[in-house]
Amino acid sequence: MSTPAGTPDPRLAESPFLAACRGEEPSHTPVWYMRQAGRSLPEYLRVREGVAMLDACMDADLVTEITLQPVRRYGVDAAIFFSDIVLPLKAVGVDLDIKPGVGPVVAEPVRTLADVAAIPDLEPAHVEFVTAAVGQLTAELGGTPLIGFAGAPFTVASYLVEGGPSKDHARTKAMMFGAPEVWDALMRKIGGIAAAYLEVQVAAGASAVQLFDSWAGALSPADYREHVQPHSARVLASVAGREGGGVPRIHFGVGTSELLTDMGEAGADVVGVDWRTPLDVGISRVGDRAVQGNLDPTLVFAPTEVMLARAAEVVEAGRAARGHVFNLGHGVLPATDPAALERLTEFVQSRPR
Amino acid sequence: MSTPAGTPDPRLAESPFLAACRGEEPSHTPVWYMRQAGRSLPEYLRVREGVAMLDACMDADLVTEITLQPVRRYGVDAAIFFSDIVLPLKAVGVDLDIKPGVGPVVAEPVRTLADVAAIPDLEPAHVEFVTAAVGQLTAELGGTPLIGFAGAPFTVASYLVEGGPSKDHARTKAMMFGAPEVWDALMRKIGGIAAAYLEVQVAAGASAVQLFDSWAGALSPADYREHVQPHSARVLASVAGREGGGVPRIHFGVGTSELLTDMGEAGADVVGVDWRTPLDVGISRVGDRAVQGNLDPTLVFAPTEVMLARAAEVVEAGRAARGHVFNLGHGVLPATDPAALERLTEFVQSRPR
Repeated sequence: MSTPAGTPDPRLAESPFLAACRGEEPSHTPVWYMRQAGRSLPEYLRVREGVAMLDACMDADLVTEITLQPVRRYGVDAAIFFSDIVLPLKAVGVDLDIKPGVGPVVAEPVRTLADVAAIPDLEPAHVEFVTAAVGQLTAELGGTPLIGFAGAPFTVASYLVEGGPSKDHARTKAMMFGAPEVWDALMRKIGGIAAAYLEVQVAAGASAVQLFDSWAGALSPADYREHVQPHSARVLASVAGREGGGVPRIHFGVGTSELLTDMGEAGADVVGVDWRTPLDVGISRVGDRAVQGNLDPTLVFAPTEVMLARAAEVVEAGRAARGHVFNLGHGVLPATDPAALERLTEFVQSRPR
Repeated sequence: MSTPAGTPDPRLAESPFLAACRGEEPSHTPVWYMRQAGRSLPEYLRVREGVAMLDACMDADLVTEITLQPVRRYGVDAAIFFSDIVLPLKAVGVDLDIKPGVGPVVAEPVRTLADVAAIPDLEPAHVEFVTAAVGQLTAELGGTPLIGFAGAPFTVASYLVEGGPSKDHARTKAMMFGAPEVWDALMRKIGGIAAAYLEVQVAAGASAVQLFDSWAGALSPADYREHVQPHSARVLASVAGREGGGVPRIHFGVGTSELLTDMGEAGADVVGVDWRTPLDVGISRVGDRAVQGNLDPTLVFAPTEVMLARAAEVVEAGRAARGHVFNLGHGVLPATDPAALERLTEFVQSRPR
């Protein structure tokens, strides 16, 4: 089953997911789900019992098990590395925690240049559990690609500046508008950490990466381009793209209807589209890139025939793209019945190309 | 100062706000702010001390005072009737409350046709305090128009079905996808209540109305058109539009970049645009209608010169519209310094046309 660490499994050459990311013709429309490893799976809830979120993310064996669970259950075309966007900050020593029902909470929010300077850069030694987990995973996954994972600078900055989740990102934007030198330093610092974190995952064997800019949709296109895009671009550039023969880079955010062109131009091979933007519109905005998406995650609660009819429309719309990776338009909702995702996966994978 | 109830103040004919809504040339770009009456004002916090939100909304004198406060302070070009989108439900007898820090909470969420049938229709007698408050307000406001206010069927339905605020509207959409007859009955019921509520305000003297579909942006355009637009259209049709010589109808939602055309076609004279959509893009999507918006509400926390430079861009972009009412792209944030809105108001009103 397994190949030596660092040697890509030869079966990966046949991966529909990697083919779609690269704009080549896959044998079937590939499918995976954001948050497929997590709260909706009973086997996940079992292994997480009594284990805090960030402890789980730092335990190589647990990360391996949780990452594999949805691949076993659904037979999806890619695994996503189980982690959290604040994990690299925790790993370098930022005092933060993930509070159940709340989200990431940062003990001392970042406000000044000195606060930024106090955040260490990420070295591979900070995340040896990641290298170990990726090594175990690629050995187990065989021909199924592993997607590495990091939070994009804007979204991570929002947690650091606000001190926790925020609906309006008011303090974050106040820094962006009013203290550009602090903002620039913070974005460079977090961007460097995200880049190093992705590099560790790729060096250990990840076949693709996804940069999550969950909150980018809170920005106007002009603000995104001026204050955020250059920093995301540096992170994406650090992981060699298709031109350099490296791994495909997926870039995703929520509510990014007006940002899709700019997020692609930040250096993505694949742009994630949420369900608010019809996939054909998203395809026209990302230009000569692949797209990922975009079934409304609540459609798993609809009658099966309604869900599958909508999925068929998404698959059909995806044919106009340079490449199309089927996904939900956002993460799997906790109340999702795994049986619905089983049906959905089988349906998408069995559609004729 | 005042005119008899029911007789429109003759000075309203000169209102820049009403002119812009109707696509006529105003003497200056009119400006008001969503949530201008509320949490950001010290005089508001003073009068609300010890008074629950819904109690405040049902006290004609308090509604009058709160509605007038921002007009006095800022000299904005329109007043917005102080209320809450769930108020009409409370008035007809639905057991709900607004919990501080949480939002509207409904004791018995609506799930069945019987639940829908149990909700009474709204009669003017349910909201005599509204008639009283609007009468007092129009007398006090003189030449400043009063905007009436209601929540749109989808957004109100979400509170009724979820039982409270929801990030994903999963139960609401599950009903929409899986129980279309219950959905239709619920949307007709709430739409009828919203229409009757707006009619009361217009009959008492409101010069315009705004229908808030705050959560419409959670829907794909296809779902919006199929399951929501017809119901919003019925509400808007119940208040005669510019063709019939009636009051202008503003329609607003958040994250509605892909819905602007459809929201206009639901029967709005003015379509609200949030800051995520550049105003020129919004204008091209709404066609031959006026627009309202769209400064990022967090720009009040930026240095004054940054805020005003952005405001100037919004005013400039608005000139391409059939009409433009300056506003923030969403409600005034609670931490907003009133001094910033004073500067902003003065700046917008003094821009040359």
